[in-house]
Amino acid sequence: MDFFPAPLEELTNQFARLPGIGGKTAQRLAFHVLSLSEGEAEAFAQAIVNAKRQVTTCPVCRNFSSGGLCPICENPRRDTKTICVVADPRDVAALERSREYNGLYHVLHGVLSPMNHVGPDDIAIKPLVERVAKGGVDEVIMATNPDTEGEATAMYIARLLRPFDVKISRLAYGIPVGGHLEFADDATLSRALEGRREF
Amino acid sequence: MDFFPAPLEELTNQFARLPGIGGKTAQRLAFHVLSLSEGEAEAFAQAIVNAKRQVTTCPVCRNFSSGGLCPICENPRRDTKTICVVADPRDVAALERSREYNGLYHVLHGVLSPMNHVGPDDIAIKPLVERVAKGGVDEVIMATNPDTEGEATAMYIARLLRPFDVKISRLAYGIPVGGHLEFADDATLSRALEGRREF
Repeated sequence: MDFFPAPLEELTNQFARLPGIGGKTAQRLAFHVLSLSEGEAEAFAQAIVNAKRQVTTCPVCRNFSSGGLCPICENPRRDTKTICVVADPRDVAALERSREYNGLYHVLHGVLSPMNHVGPDDIAIKPLVERVAKGGVDEVIMATNPDTEGEATAMYIARLLRPFDVKISRLAYGIPVGGHLEFADDATLSRALEGRREF
Repeated sequence: MDFFPAPLEELTNQFARLPGIGGKTAQRLAFHVLSLSEGEAEAFAQAIVNAKRQVTTCPVCRNFSSGGLCPICENPRRDTKTICVVADPRDVAALERSREYNGLYHVLHGVLSPMNHVGPDDIAIKPLVERVAKGGVDEVIMATNPDTEGEATAMYIARLLRPFDVKISRLAYGIPVGGHLEFADDATLSRALEGRREF
Protein backbone atom coordinates (compact mmCIF):
# COMPACT_ATOMS: atom_id res chain seq x y z
CA MET A 1 0.00 0.00 0.00
CA ASP A 2 1.52 3.30 -1.01
CA PHE A 3 -1.54 5.38 -1.75
CA PHE A 4 -2.09 6.82 1.73
CA PRO A 5 0.49 8.83 3.71
CA ALA A 6 2.69 6.99 6.19
CA PRO A 7 1.08 8.36 9.42
CA LEU A 8 -2.33 7.12 8.23
CA GLU A 9 -0.93 3.70 7.32
CA GLU A 10 0.76 3.48 10.70
CA LEU A 11 -2.48 4.27 12.54
CA THR A 12 -4.35 1.71 10.43
CA ASN A 13 -1.72 -0.90 11.34
CA GLN A 14 -2.04 -0.03 15.01
CA PHE A 15 -5.80 -0.54 14.94
CA ALA A 16 -5.40 -3.76 12.94
CA ARG A 17 -3.28 -5.19 15.77
CA LEU A 18 -6.20 -5.00 18.22
CA PRO A 19 -8.03 -8.29 18.80
CA GLY A 20 -11.01 -8.84 16.49
CA ILE A 21 -10.24 -5.81 14.30
CA GLY A 22 -9.60 -6.70 10.63
CA GLY A 23 -7.95 -4.63 7.93
CA LYS A 24 -11.05 -2.85 6.67
CA THR A 25 -12.36 -2.04 10.14
CA ALA A 26 -8.90 -0.73 11.06
CA GLN A 27 -9.00 1.58 8.05
CA ARG A 28 -12.48 2.81 8.98
CA LEU A 29 -11.33 3.55 12.54
CA ALA A 30 -8.19 5.35 11.31
CA PHE A 31 -10.31 7.52 8.98
CA HIS A 32 -12.60 8.27 11.89
CA VAL A 33 -9.65 9.54 13.93
CA LEU A 34 -8.84 11.97 11.10
CA SER A 35 -12.37 13.32 11.38
CA LEU A 36 -11.99 14.06 15.09
CA SER A 37 -10.92 17.48 16.33
CA GLU A 38 -7.29 17.72 17.42
CA GLY A 39 -8.43 17.95 21.04
CA GLU A 40 -10.53 14.79 20.73
CA ALA A 41 -7.67 12.87 19.11
CA GLU A 42 -5.33 13.96 21.88
CA ALA A 43 -7.83 12.93 24.56
CA PHE A 44 -8.06 9.48 22.94
CA ALA A 45 -4.27 9.14 22.81
CA GLN A 46 -3.96 10.35 26.39
CA ALA A 47 -6.57 7.83 27.56
CA ILE A 48 -4.44 5.01 26.14
CA VAL A 49 -1.28 6.21 27.87
CA ASN A 50 -3.11 6.95 31.14
CA ALA A 51 -4.81 3.56 31.27
CA LYS A 52 -1.52 1.78 30.62
CA ARG A 53 0.45 3.85 33.14
CA GLN A 54 -2.09 4.22 35.94
CA VAL A 55 -4.00 0.94 35.99
CA THR A 56 -2.54 -1.75 38.22
CA THR A 57 -4.16 -4.65 40.05
CA CYS A 58 -5.73 -4.36 43.48
CA PRO A 59 -3.39 -5.81 46.16
CA VAL A 60 -6.37 -7.54 47.81
CA CYS A 61 -8.53 -8.96 45.01
CA ARG A 62 -6.39 -8.48 41.84
CA ASN A 63 -9.20 -6.64 40.07
CA PHE A 64 -8.00 -3.60 38.10
CA SER A 65 -7.30 -0.54 40.23
CA SER A 66 -5.52 2.77 39.79
CA GLY A 67 -2.98 2.35 42.57
CA GLY A 68 -4.18 1.10 45.96
CA LEU A 69 -7.44 -0.77 46.44
CA CYS A 70 -9.87 -1.30 43.56
CA PRO A 71 -13.23 0.55 43.60
CA ILE A 72 -14.98 -2.55 44.97
CA CYS A 73 -12.56 -3.36 47.82
CA GLU A 74 -12.55 0.34 48.68
CA ASN A 75 -16.35 0.55 48.90
CA PRO A 76 -17.36 0.42 52.61
CA ARG A 77 -20.86 -0.80 51.71
CA ARG A 78 -19.69 -4.11 50.24
CA ASP A 79 -20.04 -7.26 52.32
CA THR A 80 -16.46 -8.31 53.15
CA LYS A 81 -17.50 -11.77 54.35
CA THR A 82 -18.16 -13.13 50.88
CA ILE A 83 -15.57 -13.60 48.13
CA CYS A 84 -16.55 -14.44 44.56
CA VAL A 85 -13.71 -16.09 42.62
CA VAL A 86 -13.61 -15.28 38.89
CA ALA A 87 -11.09 -15.95 36.14
CA ASP A 88 -11.02 -12.51 34.55
CA PRO A 89 -11.86 -8.85 35.30
CA ARG A 90 -14.46 -9.12 32.52
CA ASP A 91 -16.36 -11.55 34.75
CA VAL A 92 -16.40 -8.94 37.51
CA ALA A 93 -18.07 -6.57 35.05
CA ALA A 94 -20.64 -9.23 34.09
CA LEU A 95 -21.52 -10.04 37.71
CA GLU A 96 -21.69 -6.37 38.71
CA ARG A 97 -24.10 -5.72 35.85
CA SER A 98 -26.48 -8.31 37.37
CA ARG A 99 -26.70 -6.08 40.50
CA GLU A 100 -27.30 -9.23 42.54
CA TYR A 101 -23.95 -9.51 44.28
CA ASN A 102 -22.68 -7.24 47.03
CA GLY A 103 -19.59 -9.08 48.27
CA LEU A 104 -15.95 -8.83 47.23
CA TYR A 105 -14.14 -10.56 44.38
CA HIS A 106 -10.97 -12.44 43.74
CA VAL A 107 -9.68 -12.30 40.18
CA LEU A 108 -7.47 -15.25 39.23
CA HIS A 109 -6.32 -13.76 35.90
CA GLY A 110 -6.58 -17.10 34.17
CA VAL A 111 -7.58 -20.71 34.81
CA LEU A 112 -5.55 -23.86 35.30
CA SER A 113 -4.70 -25.23 31.89
CA PRO A 114 -2.06 -27.96 31.67
CA MET A 115 -2.36 -27.88 27.86
CA ASN A 116 -1.21 -24.23 27.86
CA HIS A 117 1.31 -24.75 30.66
CA VAL A 118 -0.73 -22.73 33.16
CA GLY A 119 -0.25 -24.20 36.63
CA PRO A 120 -1.42 -23.17 40.11
CA ASP A 121 1.52 -20.74 40.51
CA ASP A 122 0.70 -18.91 37.28
CA ILE A 123 -2.66 -17.61 38.45
CA ALA A 124 -3.60 -15.79 41.66
CA ILE A 125 -4.53 -18.85 43.74
CA LYS A 126 -1.99 -18.36 46.56
CA PRO A 127 -3.18 -14.81 47.42
CA LEU A 128 -6.73 -16.19 47.64
CA VAL A 129 -5.73 -18.90 50.09
CA GLU A 130 -3.87 -16.30 52.17
CA ARG A 131 -6.96 -14.05 52.14
CA VAL A 132 -9.16 -16.86 53.40
CA ALA A 133 -6.54 -17.99 55.95
CA LYS A 134 -6.56 -14.51 57.50
CA GLY A 135 -10.17 -15.13 58.55
CA GLY A 136 -13.27 -12.95 58.40
CA VAL A 137 -14.59 -14.79 55.34
CA ASP A 138 -17.84 -16.77 55.58
CA GLU A 139 -18.33 -17.90 52.00
CA VAL A 140 -16.28 -18.33 48.84
CA ILE A 141 -18.35 -18.53 45.64
CA MET A 142 -16.62 -20.25 42.73
CA ALA A 143 -17.63 -18.37 39.59
CA THR A 144 -15.16 -19.64 37.01
CA ASN A 145 -16.67 -20.48 33.63
CA PRO A 146 -18.59 -23.79 33.44
CA ASP A 147 -16.15 -25.36 30.98
CA THR A 148 -13.54 -28.04 31.63
CA GLU A 149 -10.75 -25.70 32.68
CA GLY A 150 -12.99 -23.44 34.77
CA GLU A 151 -14.47 -26.50 36.43
CA ALA A 152 -11.07 -28.01 37.20
CA THR A 153 -9.82 -24.69 38.58
CA ALA A 154 -12.88 -24.38 40.86
CA MET A 155 -12.41 -27.93 42.15
CA TYR A 156 -8.69 -27.39 42.75
CA ILE A 157 -9.30 -24.21 44.74
CA ALA A 158 -12.21 -25.74 46.68
CA ARG A 159 -9.89 -28.52 47.83
CA LEU A 160 -7.26 -26.02 48.97
CA LEU A 161 -9.85 -24.08 50.97
CA ARG A 162 -11.44 -27.11 52.63
CA PRO A 163 -9.20 -26.91 55.78
CA PHE A 164 -10.59 -23.46 56.57
CA ASP A 165 -13.91 -22.83 58.28
CA VAL A 166 -15.59 -21.38 55.22
CA LYS A 167 -18.60 -22.28 53.07
CA ILE A 168 -17.63 -22.99 49.46
CA SER A 169 -20.30 -22.71 46.78
CA ARG A 170 -20.52 -22.79 42.97
CA LEU A 171 -22.73 -20.72 40.65
CA ALA A 172 -25.91 -22.63 39.72
CA TYR A 173 -26.04 -24.47 36.40
CA GLY A 174 -29.28 -24.54 34.47
CA ILE A 175 -31.25 -23.28 31.53
CA PRO A 176 -30.43 -19.65 30.73
CA VAL A 177 -33.29 -17.22 31.41
CA GLY A 178 -35.22 -16.76 28.16
CA GLY A 179 -33.75 -20.01 26.79
CA HIS A 180 -35.70 -22.90 25.29
CA LEU A 181 -35.66 -26.45 26.60
CA GLU A 182 -35.48 -27.88 23.10
CA PHE A 183 -32.25 -26.01 22.36
CA ALA A 184 -30.56 -26.78 25.69
CA ASP A 185 -27.71 -29.30 25.45
CA ASP A 186 -27.83 -32.57 27.38
CA ALA A 187 -25.28 -31.59 30.00
CA THR A 188 -27.09 -28.34 30.81
CA LEU A 189 -30.46 -30.10 31.01
CA SER A 190 -29.20 -32.82 33.31
CA ARG A 191 -27.58 -30.17 35.56
CA ALA A 192 -30.85 -28.20 35.53
CA LEU A 193 -32.77 -31.31 36.67
CA GLU A 194 -30.16 -32.16 39.28
CA GLY A 195 -30.26 -28.61 40.70
CA ARG A 196 -34.07 -28.29 40.67
CA ARG A 197 -35.60 -26.36 43.54
CA GLU A 198 -38.96 -26.51 45.25
CA PHE A 199 -41.51 -23.92 44.17
CA MET B 1 -20.13 1.41 36.53
CA ASP B 2 -17.84 1.90 39.49
CA PHE B 3 -16.03 -1.40 39.63
CA PHE B 4 -13.09 -0.51 37.38
CA PRO B 5 -10.68 2.39 37.96
CA ALA B 6 -11.38 5.69 36.22
CA PRO B 7 -8.53 5.54 33.65
CA LEU B 8 -9.80 2.17 32.43
CA GLU B 9 -13.40 3.42 32.22
CA GLU B 10 -12.21 6.46 30.30
CA LEU B 11 -10.33 4.34 27.77
CA THR B 12 -13.36 2.05 27.37
CA ASN B 13 -15.53 5.12 26.71
CA GLN B 14 -13.04 6.40 24.14
CA PHE B 15 -13.13 3.09 22.25
CA ALA B 16 -16.93 2.96 22.50
CA ARG B 17 -17.12 6.30 20.66
CA LEU B 18 -15.52 4.79 17.54
CA PRO B 19 -17.97 3.85 14.77
CA GLY B 20 -19.19 0.25 14.93
CA ILE B 21 -17.61 -0.45 18.34
CA GLY B 22 -20.15 -1.42 21.03
CA GLY B 23 -19.71 -1.44 24.78
CA LYS B 24 -18.40 -4.99 25.14
CA THR B 25 -15.96 -4.68 22.26
CA ALA B 26 -14.75 -1.38 23.71
CA GLN B 27 -14.06 -3.11 27.02
CA ARG B 28 -12.20 -5.93 25.27
CA LEU B 29 -10.03 -3.40 23.42
CA ALA B 30 -9.32 -1.41 26.60
CA PHE B 31 -8.26 -4.61 28.40
CA HIS B 32 -6.04 -5.41 25.46
CA VAL B 33 -4.28 -2.05 25.82
CA LEU B 34 -3.52 -2.92 29.46
CA SER B 35 -1.82 -6.11 28.25
CA LEU B 36 0.50 -4.17 25.92
CA SER B 37 3.96 -3.10 27.00
CA GLU B 38 4.28 0.58 27.94
CA GLY B 39 6.26 1.18 24.74
CA GLU B 40 3.56 -0.41 22.59
CA ALA B 41 0.81 1.62 24.27
CA GLU B 42 2.80 4.80 23.69
CA ALA B 43 3.38 3.93 20.04
CA PHE B 44 -0.39 3.43 19.62
CA ALA B 45 -1.15 6.77 21.30
CA GLN B 46 1.53 8.51 19.24
CA ALA B 47 0.12 7.05 16.02
CA ILE B 48 -3.25 8.65 16.80
CA VAL B 49 -1.73 12.06 17.47
CA ASN B 50 0.60 11.83 14.47
CA ALA B 51 -2.15 10.83 12.06
CA LYS B 52 -4.38 13.65 13.25
CA ARG B 53 -1.59 16.27 13.15
CA GLN B 54 0.28 15.27 10.02
CA VAL B 55 -2.39 14.02 7.64
CA THR B 56 -3.91 16.68 5.39
CA THR B 57 -5.48 16.45 1.95
CA CYS B 58 -3.50 16.59 -1.29
CA PRO B 59 -3.79 20.06 -2.91
CA VAL B 60 -4.28 18.41 -6.31
CA CYS B 61 -6.57 15.40 -5.81
CA ARG B 62 -7.81 15.79 -2.18
CA ASN B 63 -6.68 12.27 -1.29
CA PHE B 64 -5.04 12.04 2.13
CA SER B 65 -1.42 13.23 2.19
CA SER B 66 1.12 14.17 4.84
CA GLY B 67 1.74 17.72 3.70
CA GLY B 68 2.28 18.38 -0.03
CA LEU B 69 1.21 15.96 -2.74
CA CYS B 70 -0.31 12.58 -1.90
CA PRO B 71 1.70 9.41 -2.64
CA ILE B 72 -0.25 8.89 -5.88
CA CYS B 73 0.08 12.42 -7.33
CA GLU B 74 3.75 12.35 -6.34
CA ASN B 75 4.42 9.07 -8.16
CA PRO B 76 6.09 9.90 -11.53
CA ARG B 77 4.99 6.55 -13.00
CA ARG B 78 1.25 7.35 -12.82
CA ASP B 79 -0.57 8.39 -15.97
CA THR B 80 -1.49 12.05 -15.42
CA LYS B 81 -3.91 12.14 -18.38
CA THR B 82 -6.61 10.14 -16.62
CA ILE B 83 -8.54 11.22 -13.53
CA CYS B 84 -10.79 8.84 -11.61
CA VAL B 85 -13.44 10.68 -9.56
CA VAL B 86 -14.40 8.97 -6.29
CA ALA B 87 -16.52 10.01 -3.32
CA ASP B 88 -14.20 8.92 -0.53
CA PRO B 89 -10.53 8.04 0.14
CA ARG B 90 -11.76 4.51 0.94
CA ASP B 91 -12.70 4.18 -2.72
CA VAL B 92 -9.13 5.07 -3.68
CA ALA B 93 -7.98 2.17 -1.50
CA ALA B 94 -10.51 -0.19 -3.15
CA LEU B 95 -9.50 0.79 -6.69
CA GLU B 96 -5.78 0.62 -5.89
CA ARG B 97 -6.24 -2.87 -4.53
CA SER B 98 -7.59 -3.96 -7.94
CA ARG B 99 -4.18 -3.01 -9.45
CA GLU B 100 -5.98 -2.22 -12.70
CA TYR B 101 -5.79 1.57 -12.63
CA ASN B 102 -2.66 3.65 -13.13
CA GLY B 103 -4.05 7.19 -13.49
CA LEU B 104 -4.68 9.88 -10.90
CA TYR B 105 -7.70 10.39 -8.64
CA HIS B 106 -9.98 13.14 -7.54
CA VAL B 107 -11.60 12.63 -4.15
CA LEU B 108 -14.88 14.54 -3.72
CA HIS B 109 -15.18 13.82 0.03
CA GLY B 110 -18.91 13.27 -0.26
CA VAL B 111 -21.70 13.12 -2.81
CA LEU B 112 -24.49 15.55 -3.67
CA SER B 113 -27.34 14.91 -1.26
CA PRO B 114 -30.13 17.50 -1.11
CA MET B 115 -31.75 15.49 1.71
CA ASN B 116 -28.66 16.03 3.87
CA HIS B 117 -28.11 19.59 2.63
CA VAL B 118 -24.95 18.67 0.71
CA GLY B 119 -24.75 20.87 -2.37
CA PRO B 120 -22.12 21.28 -5.14
CA ASP B 121 -20.10 23.74 -3.03
CA ASP B 122 -19.86 21.31 -0.09
CA ILE B 123 -17.81 18.70 -1.95
CA ALA B 124 -14.64 19.11 -4.03
CA ILE B 125 -16.32 19.65 -7.43
CA LYS B 126 -14.90 23.07 -8.22
CA PRO B 127 -11.24 21.98 -7.82
CA LEU B 128 -11.98 19.12 -10.24
CA VAL B 129 -13.37 21.47 -12.87
CA GLU B 130 -10.32 23.70 -12.45
CA ARG B 131 -8.01 20.71 -12.85
CA VAL B 132 -9.70 19.70 -16.09
CA ALA B 133 -9.84 23.31 -17.34
CA LYS B 134 -6.03 23.56 -17.01
CA GLY B 135 -5.75 20.93 -19.76
CA GLY B 136 -3.55 17.86 -20.07
CA VAL B 137 -6.44 15.53 -19.16
CA ASP B 138 -7.73 13.01 -21.71
CA GLU B 139 -10.32 11.11 -19.68
CA VAL B 140 -12.33 11.53 -16.52
CA ILE B 141 -13.73 8.27 -15.10
CA MET B 142 -16.76 8.69 -12.83
CA ALA B 143 -16.40 6.14 -10.06
CA THR B 144 -18.96 7.31 -7.51
CA ASN B 145 -21.10 4.55 -6.00
CA PRO B 146 -23.91 3.18 -8.20
CA ASP B 147 -26.66 4.43 -5.91
CA THR B 148 -29.02 7.37 -6.40
CA GLU B 149 -26.76 10.00 -4.89
CA GLY B 150 -23.58 8.69 -6.50
CA GLU B 151 -25.37 8.53 -9.84
CA ALA B 152 -26.72 12.09 -9.54
CA THR B 153 -23.29 13.38 -8.53
CA ALA B 154 -21.66 11.67 -11.53
CA MET B 155 -24.27 13.13 -13.89
CA TYR B 156 -23.91 16.61 -12.41
CA ILE B 157 -20.13 16.58 -12.80
CA ALA B 158 -20.30 15.09 -16.31
CA ARG B 159 -22.49 18.02 -17.36
CA LEU B 160 -20.03 20.54 -15.90
CA LEU B 161 -17.14 18.90 -17.77
CA ARG B 162 -18.90 18.65 -21.14
CA PRO B 163 -17.52 22.03 -22.40
CA PHE B 164 -13.96 20.71 -22.12
CA ASP B 165 -12.31 18.48 -24.70
CA VAL B 166 -12.21 15.42 -22.47
CA LYS B 167 -13.68 11.91 -22.60
CA ILE B 168 -16.05 11.22 -19.72
CA SER B 169 -16.72 7.60 -18.74
CA ARG B 170 -18.51 5.69 -15.99
CA LEU B 171 -17.51 2.42 -14.28
CA ALA B 172 -19.29 -0.56 -15.87
CA TYR B 173 -22.40 -1.97 -14.21
CA GLY B 174 -23.00 -5.68 -14.25
CA ILE B 175 -23.02 -8.92 -12.34
CA PRO B 176 -20.22 -9.02 -9.74
CA VAL B 177 -17.48 -11.56 -10.50
CA GLY B 178 -18.35 -14.79 -8.67
CA GLY B 179 -22.00 -13.69 -8.38
CA HIS B 180 -25.02 -15.74 -9.40
CA LEU B 181 -27.59 -14.67 -11.99
CA GLU B 182 -30.46 -15.91 -9.85
CA PHE B 183 -29.47 -13.63 -6.97
CA ALA B 184 -28.82 -10.52 -9.08
CA ASP B 185 -31.46 -7.80 -8.73
CA ASP B 186 -33.48 -6.65 -11.74
CA ALA B 187 -31.69 -3.31 -12.13
CA THR B 188 -28.26 -4.95 -12.13
CA LEU B 189 -29.35 -7.62 -14.62
CA SER B 190 -30.87 -5.11 -17.03
CA ARG B 191 -27.68 -3.00 -16.84
CA ALA B 192 -25.60 -6.14 -17.41
CA LEU B 193 -27.61 -6.93 -20.56
CA GLU B 194 -27.46 -3.35 -21.75
CA GLY B 195 -23.70 -3.22 -21.30
CA ARG B 196 -23.00 -6.63 -22.88
CA ARG B 197 -19.82 -6.96 -24.94
CA GLU B 198 -18.82 -9.15 -27.85
CA PHE B 199 -16.76 -12.22 -27.03
